[in-house]
Amino acid sequence: MTVRALVFDAYGTLYDVQSVRGLAVELCGRKGELVTQLWRLKQLEYSWLRGLMGGDEDFWRLTRASLEFALEAAGVAVDPKLCERLMAKYLDLDLYPGAREALDALAGRKLAILSNGSQKMLDALVEASGVGPLFADVISVARAKTFKPDPKCYALVEQALGVGKHEVLFVSSNGFDVAGAKAFGFKVAWIERGGGVTPASSDIGPAEFYKLLRGRAEKLGPGADFRIKALTDLPSVAARLG
Amino acid sequence: MTVRALVFDAYGTLYDVQSVRGLAVELCGRKGELVTQLWRLKQLEYSWLRGLMGGDEDFWRLTRASLEFALEAAGVAVDPKLCERLMAKYLDLDLYPGAREALDALAGRKLAILSNGSQKMLDALVEASGVGPLFADVISVARAKTFKPDPKCYALVEQALGVGKHEVLFVSSNGFDVAGAKAFGFKVAWIERGGGVTPASSDIGPAEFYKLLRGRAEKLGPGADFRIKALTDLPSVAARLG
Repeated sequence: MTVRALVFDAYGTLYDVQSVRGLAVELCGRKGELVTQLWRLKQLEYSWLRGLMGGDEDFWRLTRASLEFALEAAGVAVDPKLCERLMAKYLDLDLYPGAREALDALAGRKLAILSNGSQKMLDALVEASGVGPLFADVISVARAKTFKPDPKCYALVEQALGVGKHEVLFVSSNGFDVAGAKAFGFKVAWIERGGGVTPASSDIGPAEFYKLLRGRAEKLGPGADFRIKALTDLPSVAARLG
Repeated sequence: MTVRALVFDAYGTLYDVQSVRGLAVELCGRKGELVTQLWRLKQLEYSWLRGLMGGDEDFWRLTRASLEFALEAAGVAVDPKLCERLMAKYLDLDLYPGAREALDALAGRKLAILSNGSQKMLDALVEASGVGPLFADVISVARAKTFKPDPKCYALVEQALGVGKHEVLFVSSNGFDVAGAKAFGFKVAWIERGGGVTPASSDIGPAEFYKLLRGRAEKLGPGADFRIKALTDLPSVAARLG
């Protein structure tokens, strides 16, 4: 197999969605951690539910709706200014350590992003983090009017990059995205960022619960072809594949 | 509007999915509460993800896969006998208090269940709880080869019961199901079983986190037509509608 393109998920893979926590704690105090975890889980749920229901909802609006859900559930007043500050952080999330280094090392290949984010969100994110020039395309699933893991999303890659599905190495830390990309027919590298420490009892907080729920491989069909620990492991995987 | 049929969601609406907790605690000790919450959340996630991915997976297999995920995440050995005992409880979940009383009071109308469960699971559940004779039909979404809230699921009702969508009062405690049924065009009664107590801080356990995530109205379009506190409030809602 020759890898002609490496395609990256954005949220949770290149960009740390948990990097909203600092601001959430600044703005929501002792509820900040809870808001962070409820927000991300509800954002994912809304993407899946909206994908199933139809209705072509913008990911920015879904992200805002899930933030408002999280604030209300946590008992934090839904102040428009507070919401705007947290939403703005979503356009300026931190890159994971080593992301730029890994992308630079892969720059001889065709690189792209395929994300649930809206085109505007992704363009802003890529520009803010200064990695725009490294990508041949930044693909929003909005072009398919649904959300991952709907196969119509992964099919966008072939069209946008002019490559066959067997020539793509898809990279994600999200278990559901790994399952969807693998079912579609990509080769997949799963960045295993850790499913948390095995708990001693049921007495765990929201951050640990989130890790258990989201950090592990999903039981939804064939698993990833490669399990790696960090983005910086990618160049050697790609080199092995040719 | 005349209500010609009342259609009930099963899991979480007529039947208490949290009633697996007792057995989970018996079998998994201090991890039982954690297993209970991870299991249910992952089961829901898998239904939505499989619905989006396609693949027509049976809900019984999804439920088993999500149980194994939950056990592994909690650090409990995936023993086949333990799994079988917990799975068996899914065929014999407790009816919510007042369920039989409410169904009896509504027995002059056409009643049905529409559930993500497989036909086998639902038939077993309805038989174990002795309410089978009260229903005109027990409809598994498997007939539509997808899961709620895909509109194809709700469309099964019209065909199965011979009623128009505007003649149906759909009853669910699940926010995502309310959103899907409402978007489809049913009149909807939401059983608000409580989104948990507003927490004082981020320091909450899995059961409370589950309630915050699942017990509230979703921000996915128009809300329910009726908000009720218990199944026993239904006869008066139905009487009002005619």
